[in-house]
Amino acid sequence: MFNLLLAFIPVTIALEHLAPGQQLLVFATSALAILPLAGWLGRATEHLAEHAGEGVGGLLNATFGNAAELIIALVALKAGLHDVVKASIAGSIIGNILLVLGAAMLAGGLRHSEQKFSAEGARAQATMLMLATIALILPAAYSVSIAEQVPRGLGFVSISISVLLLIVYGLFLLFSLVTHRALFTGSAEFVHGEDHPPPWSVAKALAVLAVATVFIAWMSEILVGAVEPAAHELGLSNIFVGVFIVAVLGNAAEHASAITVAMKNRMDLSLSIAIGSAVQVALFVAPLLVLLSLFIGPKPMNLAFSGGLVLSMLLAVLITGQIAGNGRSDWLKGVQLLTVYLILAITYFVIPDQMAD
Amino acid sequence: MFNLLLAFIPVTIALEHLAPGQQLLVFATSALAILPLAGWLGRATEHLAEHAGEGVGGLLNATFGNAAELIIALVALKAGLHDVVKASIAGSIIGNILLVLGAAMLAGGLRHSEQKFSAEGARAQATMLMLATIALILPAAYSVSIAEQVPRGLGFVSISISVLLLIVYGLFLLFSLVTHRALFTGSAEFVHGEDHPPPWSVAKALAVLAVATVFIAWMSEILVGAVEPAAHELGLSNIFVGVFIVAVLGNAAEHASAITVAMKNRMDLSLSIAIGSAVQVALFVAPLLVLLSLFIGPKPMNLAFSGGLVLSMLLAVLITGQIAGNGRSDWLKGVQLLTVYLILAITYFVIPDQMAD
Amino acid sequence: MFNLLLAFIPVTIALEHLAPGQQLLVFATSALAILPLAGWLGRATEHLAEHAGEGVGGLLNATFGNAAELIIALVALKAGLHDVVKASIAGSIIGNILLVLGAAMLAGGLRHSEQKFSAEGARAQATMLMLATIALILPAAYSVSIAEQVPRGLGFVSISISVLLLIVYGLFLLFSLVTHRALFTGSAEFVHGEDHPPPWSVAKALAVLAVATVFIAWMSEILVGAVEPAAHELGLSNIFVGVFIVAVLGNAAEHASAITVAMKNRMDLSLSIAIGSAVQVALFVAPLLVLLSLFIGPKPMNLAFSGGLVLSMLLAVLITGQIAGNGRSDWLKGVQLLTVYLILAITYFVIPDQMAD
Repeated sequence: MFNLLLAFIPVTIALEHLAPGQQLLVFATSALAILPLAGWLGRATEHLAEHAGEGVGGLLNATFGNAAELIIALVALKAGLHDVVKASIAGSIIGNILLVLGAAMLAGGLRHSEQKFSAEGARAQATMLMLATIALILPAAYSVSIAEQVPRGLGFVSISISVLLLIVYGLFLLFSLVTHRALFTGSAEFVHGEDHPPPWSVAKALAVLAVATVFIAWMSEILVGAVEPAAHELGLSNIFVGVFIVAVLGNAAEHASAITVAMKNRMDLSLSIAIGSAVQVALFVAPLLVLLSLFIGPKPMNLAFSGGLVLSMLLAVLITGQIAGNGRSDWLKGVQLLTVYLILAITYFVIPDQMAD
Repeated sequence: MFNLLLAFIPVTIALEHLAPGQQLLVFATSALAILPLAGWLGRATEHLAEHAGEGVGGLLNATFGNAAELIIALVALKAGLHDVVKASIAGSIIGNILLVLGAAMLAGGLRHSEQKFSAEGARAQATMLMLATIALILPAAYSVSIAEQVPRGLGFVSISISVLLLIVYGLFLLFSLVTHRALFTGSAEFVHGEDHPPPWSVAKALAVLAVATVFIAWMSEILVGAVEPAAHELGLSNIFVGVFIVAVLGNAAEHASAITVAMKNRMDLSLSIAIGSAVQVALFVAPLLVLLSLFIGPKPMNLAFSGGLVLSMLLAVLITGQIAGNGRSDWLKGVQLLTVYLILAITYFVIPDQMAD
Repeated sequence: MFNLLLAFIPVTIALEHLAPGQQLLVFATSALAILPLAGWLGRATEHLAEHAGEGVGGLLNATFGNAAELIIALVALKAGLHDVVKASIAGSIIGNILLVLGAAMLAGGLRHSEQKFSAEGARAQATMLMLATIALILPAAYSVSIAEQVPRGLGFVSISISVLLLIVYGLFLLFSLVTHRALFTGSAEFVHGEDHPPPWSVAKALAVLAVATVFIAWMSEILVGAVEPAAHELGLSNIFVGVFIVAVLGNAAEHASAITVAMKNRMDLSLSIAIGSAVQVALFVAPLLVLLSLFIGPKPMNLAFSGGLVLSMLLAVLITGQIAGNGRSDWLKGVQLLTVYLILAITYFVIPDQMAD
């Protein structure tokens, strides 16, 4: 029945071309169309995880899930909208670790009194996030205190740190997928019961993953295009839309998958999706965009995010490390992460655009 | 013999009415009167804990212990002294987690080489504190950078976050007293030996608790009224008196109880009292005062604490999370918490009032 | 064969006196001379550790290793170069926990898939570092916001906190060497195999330690004297040289020892050297210098480090606590620590001297 919502894919495309200006309608139909797609993406990820392990499954989910964000960011980069790109990166990191992980821990915790996962794997990922946050704090501090006098310094810092982050992300993949993959697979104690069909073949799972991603990326683009005018009609600021609304919708895939598998008590996979996606945005997407900006768009983008965004990411990363560091979760942890997300959203809600730095 | 000090209750009341201006004398007698009262409060808490579990016992102790603070804050709120209210809130949070918990870990650690407690319960409480700190950092940052241009934003942020915090505190009580109470009761391995009389009835324990609280609140008010003139005679600033002296005295009940039970090696109860009291102030008393200020006093109070207070709370919460996160304590941990408290006190000691923002 | 490098000791001394101005040559020969000396120092530490335990061994190594830094700092203090002293202190703390510990975890992790150490001992040391960082954050915040109006406040804060830190360091030694030494010795499960000669006598080990230290201190002084002109010829700033180059060379002894023992899977000793050395600089060397500055040099030195140095130390301490808190390490943790070190170095590389505050 859920798949009936797939009918909204052609409806959205039709509306987009035939009824320009109906942005609120397009927003609703594209959002509805994404739901079943995200469901298929999650299912394909799960099946792949049974073949390849939870680490690889989580990575694939994160990668396909971030494809939409990368495409959106590239479009904005080409237009020179660096603030939009940075808001989308920060929003994606914050959204993945507070909203997606929080919702997954809450949904899982309402079903299971206590859920376990590999503390080591979670700590390794949380440390990667803290490292990435440090990589953003220093250019921001440099930008505030020194860049006016030494403007070329910021470019050097941005490019050097970006290269470094890409190398470290490569090493992290080597660690989590090759040399220490056992840390990320968890106890894997879930049972093949009656309601558990045999896994799809790798080819089928990959095909579903690819098709679902293409359509999600397509719908996401339409939805993002529609949400901004609609949101501004409602009086929302650009920064709020960029950090919270666009990022939430851009993470629909991770969202659906992480919650689904958390309810099945597969928390290692859920964390690999949620935190793993944030790690990928911070250590792969963001530095890649900085380097690509040397060739694309009107001027190079630096790594100096606004003080407010850096502070938000730092607080999100600190509380995530605190919550995920001991290998168990419950519904209160989900509530705590979601609360921090709401606190950030409330604060950004009243920041006018001209003050967003 | 200790109960002989109860004689100072009537002495204090008499002095307060018959010898106005003798503030130093009133200060001394009211402080002496509080000592046996705090002892009775602690004993009643312990007896209740045997009936209702350590979580409920700690909560009751924190609630009755914070009654005095709430009364003091309401008086200040009515007079529009928002800075006094905020200093008292910050001082209570800092005092409970650094001074009370530090003294308890030191006193307990001098008797027992190593003390264990439920790491999960301690982490849940430390995370609540971090969440509350984030809830104070963002309005403060907003206030510094934006509120001048968008003044009504701060009111919206303060009220919204306050409502959110009250909801989360309710959920935390649900978690710690109902759905996951086992996390907070610890191993409860203490032995009923010869020196351990049978527990009081619930009715008797509650009655003692209530009577002791009433008298503590009474003596606290007199003491707080007396300490300010006395302290200022000694050249101390308002901010130092508010954050350190008033808060220390207002926490006398938690102090006595937390140390007493720590020496009996009941660290779960001790943490429930010390951290639990700080959690209650941060997530219940502070937001409640913000909402009450809409109806009481000359103007609404916001959630934006001064940068120095927010920084102090953040540092206190970070080191508490580090110290309490692994379920064991020793005397050095007590020393570490007390040292941070002293460092904060030294710094505030030399901040003149006109610079306290 | 390695000991052949000892021949560079007389070569360095000869060059220093006979060929003034050949700073690049002196730099190279003194650096080469330090290598075998550091090797002997590490070996002597290991032998002592077998007699006295890993805690005492680590402390001795840290103390002898920090002797060079103390001497260098005293010379700078006498000349009134407070910025140089502070850069050297900050660089030593950052270098020990990011570079030395990172290199040790990487080198050890490449040989051993997983290495264990006492989580309690590591946490106690990480907490000491956080405490020391808090002791530096508050004077810095005071200095920025208040000191202009209340200049004598900073002196009071600096002296009081310094005395407090020295007392706490004494208590930490009491804790780690007397009352709770078991927390720092780890499993000590290494095996006396064929390639493991019988331990030296205590007298021999101490003699080697003392002689090696004297020569390292001597060579370090020459090297530090040579590296500054050489580095400035290359266009490096004073602050970069002070925080990164001088500190790296000053920590050569800790470096060699910590890596050597990590490769032998003695992580408890390795952490005692690396983190222990940072703890000693933060809680003993720095406050001692503040107090000595009352008698030595043109004017008293305060505890207020520049905002950039304090931020760098805070970030380094936060990620070290995250990485060392659970009693196990692997090569990725080494990479993570080294990456943060590189990020800091990249940022400092482009800060010109006149902006280093």
